[in-house]
Amino acid sequence: MLERDAARLSDARKRVDVSVMGSGAIAGSALSLDREFTARKSGFSGISANSIDSVSDRDFMVEIVSAISMLGVHLSRISEDFILYSTGEFGFIDIGEEYCTGSSLMPQKKNADVLELARGRSSFFIGALASLLTLLKGLPHAYNRDLQEDKRHLFESVSAIKDELLVLSRLVGTIIVEESGVAAQMEDEFLLSTDIAEYLVQKGIPFREAHAVVGAMVRYCIDKGKGFTGMDVRELKGFSDAIGDDFSGILSPEYSVKNKKTPGGTNPEHVGREIKRWKRKLEM
Amino acid sequence: MLERDAARLSDARKRVDVSVMGSGAIAGSALSLDREFTARKSGFSGISANSIDSVSDRDFMVEIVSAISMLGVHLSRISEDFILYSTGEFGFIDIGEEYCTGSSLMPQKKNADVLELARGRSSFFIGALASLLTLLKGLPHAYNRDLQEDKRHLFESVSAIKDELLVLSRLVGTIIVEESGVAAQMEDEFLLSTDIAEYLVQKGIPFREAHAVVGAMVRYCIDKGKGFTGMDVRELKGFSDAIGDDFSGILSPEYSVKNKKTPGGTNPEHVGREIKRWKRKLEM
Amino acid sequence: MLERDAARLSDARKRVDVSVMGSGAIAGSALSLDREFTARKSGFSGISANSIDSVSDRDFMVEIVSAISMLGVHLSRISEDFILYSTGEFGFIDIGEEYCTGSSLMPQKKNADVLELARGRSSFFIGALASLLTLLKGLPHAYNRDLQEDKRHLFESVSAIKDELLVLSRLVGTIIVEESGVAAQMEDEFLLSTDIAEYLVQKGIPFREAHAVVGAMVRYCIDKGKGFTGMDVRELKGFSDAIGDDFSGILSPEYSVKNKKTPGGTNPEHVGREIKRWKRKLEM
Amino acid sequence: MLERDAARLSDARKRVDVSVMGSGAIAGSALSLDREFTARKSGFSGISANSIDSVSDRDFMVEIVSAISMLGVHLSRISEDFILYSTGEFGFIDIGEEYCTGSSLMPQKKNADVLELARGRSSFFIGALASLLTLLKGLPHAYNRDLQEDKRHLFESVSAIKDELLVLSRLVGTIIVEESGVAAQMEDEFLLSTDIAEYLVQKGIPFREAHAVVGAMVRYCIDKGKGFTGMDVRELKGFSDAIGDDFSGILSPEYSVKNKKTPGGTNPEHVGREIKRWKRKLEM
Repeated sequence: MLERDAARLSDARKRVDVSVMGSGAIAGSALSLDREFTARKSGFSGISANSIDSVSDRDFMVEIVSAISMLGVHLSRISEDFILYSTGEFGFIDIGEEYCTGSSLMPQKKNADVLELARGRSSFFIGALASLLTLLKGLPHAYNRDLQEDKRHLFESVSAIKDELLVLSRLVGTIIVEESGVAAQMEDEFLLSTDIAEYLVQKGIPFREAHAVVGAMVRYCIDKGKGFTGMDVRELKGFSDAIGDDFSGILSPEYSVKNKKTPGGTNPEHVGREIKRWKRKLEM
Repeated sequence: MLERDAARLSDARKRVDVSVMGSGAIAGSALSLDREFTARKSGFSGISANSIDSVSDRDFMVEIVSAISMLGVHLSRISEDFILYSTGEFGFIDIGEEYCTGSSLMPQKKNADVLELARGRSSFFIGALASLLTLLKGLPHAYNRDLQEDKRHLFESVSAIKDELLVLSRLVGTIIVEESGVAAQMEDEFLLSTDIAEYLVQKGIPFREAHAVVGAMVRYCIDKGKGFTGMDVRELKGFSDAIGDDFSGILSPEYSVKNKKTPGGTNPEHVGREIKRWKRKLEM
Repeated sequence: MLERDAARLSDARKRVDVSVMGSGAIAGSALSLDREFTARKSGFSGISANSIDSVSDRDFMVEIVSAISMLGVHLSRISEDFILYSTGEFGFIDIGEEYCTGSSLMPQKKNADVLELARGRSSFFIGALASLLTLLKGLPHAYNRDLQEDKRHLFESVSAIKDELLVLSRLVGTIIVEESGVAAQMEDEFLLSTDIAEYLVQKGIPFREAHAVVGAMVRYCIDKGKGFTGMDVRELKGFSDAIGDDFSGILSPEYSVKNKKTPGGTNPEHVGREIKRWKRKLEM
Repeated sequence: MLERDAARLSDARKRVDVSVMGSGAIAGSALSLDREFTARKSGFSGISANSIDSVSDRDFMVEIVSAISMLGVHLSRISEDFILYSTGEFGFIDIGEEYCTGSSLMPQKKNADVLELARGRSSFFIGALASLLTLLKGLPHAYNRDLQEDKRHLFESVSAIKDELLVLSRLVGTIIVEESGVAAQMEDEFLLSTDIAEYLVQKGIPFREAHAVVGAMVRYCIDKGKGFTGMDVRELKGFSDAIGDDFSGILSPEYSVKNKKTPGGTNPEHVGREIKRWKRKLEM
C-alpha cells in the first residue's frame, strides 16, 4: 500500500515540477523574460505551457492532497488493525508505552492514543480534499480570490501527514508480538478448513465437492465436541476416501502458513524475500 | 489541464495493471497456481506482491475516481467559461443549437443546458470520491463486506465522465466566436494598462514607478472622459518623459496580444505552435 | 433562505442545550451528583439521558456545522449573483470600494474580492462537515481519542461564518443599483414573452396554444428586425384574434413586474409587504 | 442518538412543508392562482414567501440528506459495536443466522454481513451530502440545469436509509447476549478501579489522592499477581486508612453497575425507567 502511495506522490511531483514564473497576470509578459532560465534557477525541470492555465489551476494541490488522503486512509486501516490486535480480547500485540496513555487511576491500562488519533486524522485529509475540489468547481478561468483558500488545505495536509508518518514509523518499532495471544487464537482448528479443502483438491476432488466435504466435517466435529485432530481414521475416511496418511501432517498452523505456494501469500520463503527486498529498498 | 488529467489516468493505470488472482481469501493458495501466467493471460503486466493487500485495498478505485474528479472539475470550469461567454451580457460565443434547449415560448432563447449539466456533474464525482475514501477509512485489513459499496462509485463515475467528455468534445466543435461581441468589449482602452506599464519598464522606468504612472493616467482619463488614445503628446509627456513617438503604436488589442513575448502567453506565434503540437498529438 | 438557516441553527440549539456533566467516563458516577442542578447552574435546560451517548456522540457538532455549511452555500450563491451583476458586462450593481480591491496599475478596476472569498469559503464548510461525519463513521461507542479532532472543525466553522456574515451584511449596505445598467438589459422586449402568453391565457386561449402563438411572434419579429411594440394591429391580429386594444399596455417591464399577482412574486405590493415584515423582524 | 435523529428529520419536515406552486419560472404569475388553496389541496401547511428562492433553492434536500447522513453514521457506530462484540475474541453477543452469511467451507463461521454493509453504507450518505452541497455552491439564483442532479442524491439516500433501518431493527431483535462471554471479561477486577476511587472519595479522600491510591493498589496487585479481592485487611489498610469493612462489598461487577447514582448511568433502576419510557413511546 505504502509503496503505491509513494509512487502516487512521486507521479504528482512530475506535474508540480513546472515553473509558472513569467505567466504574468494572465496573458504572459511583454518583457523579454527567459522563462526556461528562471525555471532552472528556481529548481524546476520545465515551464508551464499556457499562461491562463498557470494562473488558474490548482490541480497540483488537489493531486498531492488526494495522494495524502489515500495514504492517510491506509494509515487509518493499519492503525485499526493495531488497535484491534492490542485489545485485551485479541491480545496479539503490545505497543510501546511511550505511544500509549494511561491514567493515575488505571496504570495497567494502556490506551493506544496515537493509533486512534491516526485513525481519526484520515477524516481531516478527506475533508481537505473535498474542500479543495469544491473550491475549484465551477470557477471561471483567470485568477479568482476564491483561490486564497487553497494553501491552507495543502500546507496543513502535508504537515499533518509528515507528523503522522514519523510517529507511526517509530511506534511500529516498539510493537511486540504476543506469541501466547496469537497462539491462543490458533488453537481453533477450524481455521484450517481451507487447508483441508485444498488438500482434497490436490487429491483430485473437484473444488465444490471438497468444500461440501469440509463443511460436513466441521458440522460433525461441532456436534461431537471435537476438532479435526480428534477424529480417527475411520471417521475421516467416512467423509472422503481421498483422505490419506499424510492428512494429519497438514493439521497445524505452522504447516498451513508454510504450505501456501503462491507468491504474495504466507509462505515464509516468499515473506522473507519481500522483507529482504524492502530492507534493500529502504537501505537498512 | 486535460493533458495533466490524461497523465494522471495513465499513471493510475500502471498501478491497476496488476493481477490479484491467486491471492485466495486472504493468505494465498496451497495449490500450484502460476500467478504470472494467469496475469499475462488476463492482460495484466504483473502480479500483486501481498495477498492481504490484494484482498483488502481499493486504492486503485480511489485513484481513478480522484483523477476523474479533477477532470470533472476542469470540465466544470471550462463549462462555466462558456456559460458566461454565451450570456447576452458577454456575447463572446455562440453554441450550437443542438446542445442548447429553448422553449416554445421563447424560441430565441438558447439555454446551454449541456454546459450547466457538466458544471453540476462535477459535484457527483467529488461526492463519489468522498464516499470511497470514507468507505475505506478505519477498516481493518482482510475482506469486509463494506467493500461491496465500492464498485458503484467507480462504475458510475467512469460512465458519467465518458458521456460528458463525448458530449463536450462535440459541443466545442459547434462554438462560433462572436467577433463583434468580443470587439465590443475590447473597446475599453483601460484593458491596455498593463501594456503601457510594460512599455515604460522597457524604457527604463522601475516597475513600481511605471505602475504609479499608469494609475495616474487612468484617473486623468476618467476625469476628462477620454481614453488613452484621446490624449495628445503634451498630456502624455506630462505623465512621463519616457513616453515617445512609438507610444501610440502599442495602443491596440491586436498589438497587445502580439507583443507578449513569454512562451505560454497570447503571442499568436506561440499559440500557433501549441495548436500544431496538439493537432499532431491528437492525430488530426 | 437565511430565515431557514436561522431556524436550522435554532433547532440545533435545542439539541445542544443538554448538559452531559455527571456522565463520568462512560457509566455515570457513584457519587451523589445532582445533574439537574449542575445543568441549570451551567445554563443548560436539561440533562442528557444516556451516559454512553453523552461520552461518545458528537452529532450536535455535525448538526451545527451542517447548518453552517448550508448557510455558507447560500452566501456563496448570493455572492455569485453580486459578482455577476457587478461585472462590466452586466453592470447591474456597484459595490462599495471598501469591499473591493484595485491595483496601482488599474485604479479604475474594482475587484469584489470579499464576494469571491465568500464564494470560495463555502468549500471550507463543506469539507469540515465531511471531515466531522467521516471522523465519527464506524467508531465504536465510548470515548475514542479520534474525537480529539472534532473541535477544530466546529470552532473554525463558527468563527469563519461569523466573520463572513458580518462582512457581507456591511457590504450589502454599500451596494448601489445601477439603474441605467438594468434599464439597458430591460430594452430586450423578448423578456416580455411570458407576459404575452399569460395575456392570451386570460383571454381564453389554452396555455399550450398561447405558447405557440408567442413563439411565432418572436420568430416573426426577429425576421423583421423589430420588437413586439414595433408591430401594428394588423400584424398582431394575424397571430391571434384574442389580441385586443389593451395589448400595448402590457408591453413594458414596469407593467410586467406589477402585473404578477401571486404572493412571493415581483408585484411591488407583495415585495413591499415582505420588506416591512423583515424590517419589523430585524427591529430596524 | 436515534431520538435526536428523529427530531432532526421532524424539524426538516417543517421547512419542507411549504408549497412552491405558483412561483412560475422565477417571478410569480400574472394569472389569478390561489397559492394557499393549491398548497392546502396538495397537503402542504403553507406557501413559500419568495418566488426566486422557491425556484432556486434546494436546501430542504440538503437538510434531509444531512439528517440521514448523521443517522447513517449512528447506525455505522452501532454496527461497529455489534461487529466487535460478536467476534470470537469478544464473544459478547450472538446475531441471528438470517442476518449473517457463512460458507459451505466454514459453516461454523457466521459473518455479520448486514452490519458490515451498514457500516459501509454510511459513506454513501456522506458522499451524497457532499455532492448536494457542492452542486449548489456558487450557483447564481434562478433555475439552472445543474439542479437536475439533485434528486438522485435525495431519492437514493431516503431509499437506502429506509432499507437499512428496517433490516437493522429486525436484526437487533435476533441478538442474544452471551452471558458467559460477558462474564469472562468481567473477571478482570481492575475494571473496578473507578469504583474504588469513588469509594475513597465518599470516605472523604480528595479525588486526586484517591486516584493515586488506586493506581498504587493496581501496581501492587500486578506485582503480586493477584486481584483486589486477593488482598487481606492489612494490605488494604496499607494503602489507605479510609478502607473499611464495607470495602469488600463493592468489589463485584453487579455492585458496580447498581451503585451508579446519576441518571443516565448504569443503575438498573434508571435503565429500567428508560426502557419503560421507550416502550411507551414506541407503543409496544
